[in-house]
Amino acid sequence: MSDIKILFLSKDDIDALNIGIDDGLDAIEKGLIAHGQQKVIMPSKSHLVLDFPNKLFNILKGYVEPVNAAGVKIIGDFHDNYQHNLPSEFALVTLYDPKTGVPMAIVDGTVNTWMRTGAVTALGAKYLASKDSKVLGHIGARGTSWYNVRMLDKIFDFEEIRVTSRRPESRERFAETLSAELNKEIKVMDNCKDTVKDADIIIDASRLLEHQVLVADSDVKPGAHLQAYGAVLSVAPTLPFTVDKFVVDDWNQCKISPYGQFADLCQRGELRDEHVYCDIGEIAAGLKPGRESETERSLFWHKGFAISDIMLGMLAVEKARERGIGTELVYYKAPRDM
Amino acid sequence: MSDIKILFLSKDDIDALNIGIDDGLDAIEKGLIAHGQQKVIMPSKSHLVLDFPNKLFNILKGYVEPVNAAGVKIIGDFHDNYQHNLPSEFALVTLYDPKTGVPMAIVDGTVNTWMRTGAVTALGAKYLASKDSKVLGHIGARGTSWYNVRMLDKIFDFEEIRVTSRRPESRERFAETLSAELNKEIKVMDNCKDTVKDADIIIDASRLLEHQVLVADSDVKPGAHLQAYGAVLSVAPTLPFTVDKFVVDDWNQCKISPYGQFADLCQRGELRDEHVYCDIGEIAAGLKPGRESETERSLFWHKGFAISDIMLGMLAVEKARERGIGTELVYYKAPRDM
Repeated sequence: MSDIKILFLSKDDIDALNIGIDDGLDAIEKGLIAHGQQKVIMPSKSHLVLDFPNKLFNILKGYVEPVNAAGVKIIGDFHDNYQHNLPSEFALVTLYDPKTGVPMAIVDGTVNTWMRTGAVTALGAKYLASKDSKVLGHIGARGTSWYNVRMLDKIFDFEEIRVTSRRPESRERFAETLSAELNKEIKVMDNCKDTVKDADIIIDASRLLEHQVLVADSDVKPGAHLQAYGAVLSVAPTLPFTVDKFVVDDWNQCKISPYGQFADLCQRGELRDEHVYCDIGEIAAGLKPGRESETERSLFWHKGFAISDIMLGMLAVEKARERGIGTELVYYKAPRDM
Repeated sequence: MSDIKILFLSKDDIDALNIGIDDGLDAIEKGLIAHGQQKVIMPSKSHLVLDFPNKLFNILKGYVEPVNAAGVKIIGDFHDNYQHNLPSEFALVTLYDPKTGVPMAIVDGTVNTWMRTGAVTALGAKYLASKDSKVLGHIGARGTSWYNVRMLDKIFDFEEIRVTSRRPESRERFAETLSAELNKEIKVMDNCKDTVKDADIIIDASRLLEHQVLVADSDVKPGAHLQAYGAVLSVAPTLPFTVDKFVVDDWNQCKISPYGQFADLCQRGELRDEHVYCDIGEIAAGLKPGRESETERSLFWHKGFAISDIMLGMLAVEKARERGIGTELVYYKAPRDM
């Protein structure tokens, strides 16, 4: 056999690829469709918890038939890293040939995690929010928040975008940067209540360490669409039961993985199969209708899944090969059966 | 912050390090002791199964306090790879700083998996087999078998080593190579029965695809020590109940992970807490006695755990840094909180 080589794409290589919002949305949507069509294999993510919820690793694994790849993402979630001026998340995605298990690529997943999460946020809103959504209320100004707002605005071209977060310096930097990029005002708010009031789309990308209700049930007006995906419950726990459509990214994983917004409700057996409208991929694949009326309230809970990481990882590999970016590592010279 | 660099160690780098049997045994024993002393965090391994039992990935994660590292090993198990003249297993171990989740190293784990498995085999026999063991009966002649026999012979210096396996070409190559290396005869056997007959130590490293009894209960004589660690049951299922000591590497993982020698017995609730003498690490740490009489029959079931992978991974990193082996990759230039 010839040498086995692995393509390594660093954080800086991924930055250099500069994957566009349209390409990102397209890849993630294809992943959602594959998931809806059951052309994937995806056990629940698992976790290595050193100190919950401050220091843990999430480990996501899956296989996506349309891109012919298996993959595993390992992502740290270290909340206190900002004290060392470090991002809270570092992610490595390893990709494998599903015929032989041979490693093909090691791709930084840090920025891709933000992009893939933003893309799932935006696509969820595309299927479930009003096409005429004009006001976005966004809680959170780090990590995934960057792509949430960019990608949502790409789809909805909002008249008003409001952003709040725990630390003033984060939200101000966030608003300033994105305002210049999107060429529209981003309103910096100092509280959640005013941020989400009468918003058509409410995204709670907060990262609480302890349960706190940032979005009340009554904050979600008729016709509004809400998403919340933190590791800890940050919206009213009534919401999955009171909205007209409660949609998830992968209900099997939501039930099994013990962390996430509504995980406690699942673990206690209160949030059950009958409360879930469907997985978002079933809407993406056209197997279930998305939004059906202008007054329906919907809630989309995405925990994040390996399918998206594999889709963006393979997109990065494809683009890197086209453009000669990255480091090709000789992993295994002349392998043979031992 | 300064740039984050990752040390990449390929299969060939690991070969070049040429980690010796003594160093390997020492590192693995330290890992067993740390496990026994509960200075580790280790959830059960998980699995990505594309086609059981022919095509699957095992994903092992853990944290080992004494070496200050968290790590994840992803290892493919693709039985049919020999048809492509490829090893059935390829493994990548990624190692992380447990304070921040920053990736430190990516280390090939293919050969290290064989070594760490062989070391656990040898150390299990050290604690549980007779010090005067003279005859080794070994089933299997690929992958981990190489280190099983090398490391066991290092400890016991056998008078007789018998080896059998499914394919004649494997066992003949195996015996020829190891016979030269150990400077003693290795008897190639064409059946399991004669291989294990009256042996003091019996190692079943077979890799069956379907259940078959290669070692009967009566094949394990009084005083003999048996180990079996295949993915599928290959010894008499009575053995965990009839031996004097049934020891495992990590009982929590044995109960949870659905694959492995006695996994079905666990899943059906037949093999329970009360049947297990202890985890091997408790013996290594001196918390429980190992072998206590010359007539006791013992069985050690090791499924393999992340602790060993992290120990050998960190040993490889340390040796590589000393000797300037490997490729230092710039993973993330000047990281900052985002």
